[in-house]
Amino acid sequence: MSESREIHLVRRPSGIPVEEDFAVVTGPSPEPAEGEVQLQAVFVSVDPYMRPRLDADQPLNAPMLGGGIARVIKSRHASLREGQLVRHALGMRERFVSNGAGLTALNPDPSLPLSVYMHALGMTGLTAYAGLLEVGALKNGEQVFVSTAAGAVGSVAAQIAKIKDCYVVGSTGSEDKAEWLRTTAGLDAVINYKATPIAAALQAATPKGIDVYYENVGGDHLDAALTRMNLRGRIPVCGMISTYNGGHDGVRNLFNVIYPRIRIEGFLVGDFGHLNERFIEDMTAWIKSGRIKYQETILDGFARAPEGLIGLFRGYNSGKMLIRVAD
Amino acid sequence: MSESREIHLVRRPSGIPVEEDFAVVTGPSPEPAEGEVQLQAVFVSVDPYMRPRLDADQPLNAPMLGGGIARVIKSRHASLREGQLVRHALGMRERFVSNGAGLTALNPDPSLPLSVYMHALGMTGLTAYAGLLEVGALKNGEQVFVSTAAGAVGSVAAQIAKIKDCYVVGSTGSEDKAEWLRTTAGLDAVINYKATPIAAALQAATPKGIDVYYENVGGDHLDAALTRMNLRGRIPVCGMISTYNGGHDGVRNLFNVIYPRIRIEGFLVGDFGHLNERFIEDMTAWIKSGRIKYQETILDGFARAPEGLIGLFRGYNSGKMLIRVAD
Repeated sequence: MSESREIHLVRRPSGIPVEEDFAVVTGPSPEPAEGEVQLQAVFVSVDPYMRPRLDADQPLNAPMLGGGIARVIKSRHASLREGQLVRHALGMRERFVSNGAGLTALNPDPSLPLSVYMHALGMTGLTAYAGLLEVGALKNGEQVFVSTAAGAVGSVAAQIAKIKDCYVVGSTGSEDKAEWLRTTAGLDAVINYKATPIAAALQAATPKGIDVYYENVGGDHLDAALTRMNLRGRIPVCGMISTYNGGHDGVRNLFNVIYPRIRIEGFLVGDFGHLNERFIEDMTAWIKSGRIKYQETILDGFARAPEGLIGLFRGYNSGKMLIRVAD
Repeated sequence: MSESREIHLVRRPSGIPVEEDFAVVTGPSPEPAEGEVQLQAVFVSVDPYMRPRLDADQPLNAPMLGGGIARVIKSRHASLREGQLVRHALGMRERFVSNGAGLTALNPDPSLPLSVYMHALGMTGLTAYAGLLEVGALKNGEQVFVSTAAGAVGSVAAQIAKIKDCYVVGSTGSEDKAEWLRTTAGLDAVINYKATPIAAALQAATPKGIDVYYENVGGDHLDAALTRMNLRGRIPVCGMISTYNGGHDGVRNLFNVIYPRIRIEGFLVGDFGHLNERFIEDMTAWIKSGRIKYQETILDGFARAPEGLIGLFRGYNSGKMLIRVAD
């Protein structure tokens, strides 16, 4: 327990990141001082939003920004006891100390697997919930399109829309994922955009147009959606994964926002902490009743975090990609 | 008075319209039946929004959709008297009859030229006013960017922002127009995008970023603005003239809506009729006190309407382009 590892960015990626852009750096594992705890990573998160940061905000030769679930293994802190699980955003570190700032105690429902708190009951779930219901102002029974609908955020957004009695179309990039969306998640129509051009497929799949497009992709997906939006449609922008690795085409159909008075609005989950209590209550009930289903792709071993992040942009994940470091 | 003329679209334009896409068609001037009036066009409007319609909504071999100011020259109508001025959206027609539907009585302030009711006190003025203050939710003292700032809508939007104590940057496509914006309209900074690339010029001109981008252009203007938007910035989309005549590049910086939580929202002036009374009151006062200045480019003669419309896309107008048909 005297050593710890960190994932560092050592080179800014060109296009999709490769293993050589990262390094696993071993160093001493500091002991907690008075008022501090020592934490052991349990799960580490890798998410699409990390990619744009690699071009600028993420410092080189420093721990990757990011978060996960950790467990207190030594405590000299007044209120955080040994064994307590916490959520944190303190970076990709195997063991580390904290004075408690940036830690949120996590007391999971014992009937659910802990990994669920990394996705449907975690940041990605709240991203789907807030983006669809608050930014997207979804009304029951509307026409909804979700891109990367088999992803961690998209799969939750699509199923929330189903719970709200909407007609839901999802796009994804493989037949396996499309099949999961059709049969398990119960979407009304699914587009495999690698098998059929998105514009024609979306037109065919949305006979009543689109009221809310939950946007994770950008590029040709956004262009396709812009030709299908209904009056006063909303496009909450969660991400634009098609643009993250360079070389993307521009969006040509933005003029279409004018006649139907479309609103396109970017958002960050961090603005919606006030919804968290209601979200946890709703989502826990939906998961337990089987109305929200999920997939997760778990890589075992701290050192596989770069592989997990790279895999996101190659579509290797079904649902949430996460790294399991310890039980 | 037994003949009248109409402007017809006879061919869908490819790129910027040309004279051959239109025809001036002469026919009989119908007499008003009981309950109808006969109207004589006084001013005919030509506006950028007409261009996208030429590709689809505008019927071929029928009068061009559009509006203007007309005068009642014969009346068999209970409340519309001979000599009454009206606003209408009944198309590009020299003389025509109406049962009153779609006519709005216009009682202009006698101390102002009638032409002002075709722009600053007309639809283009309300477009600027509603787009900036309602859709853009402008607050006093904010940082504002207006594209086509010397145009009919842009020049009003830019000056309203100055009245609201904002820092205002405008873009335009000629040195003459830039000079008018600097010296007469009193903008804080003016970019001639034909002389300097818009992205670098906008960066230099907006040291405190942009809170509201009043969008008339699209394309590289939008891309440039998207890199300069402040937290919770708004982009009311009035038009995207750069896209109207084909061959435009896509917009590549839309990812930038996410981190600063930008809202892009299309709108049509027709949704803001409820503001008209307040608008007329404000704008009349602003014009009379010299706080709103305007330019207008008037072509004399009904048959010059196609020339006027084409000229809009070649930048031949300073301020509002309009056609004078009669005194």
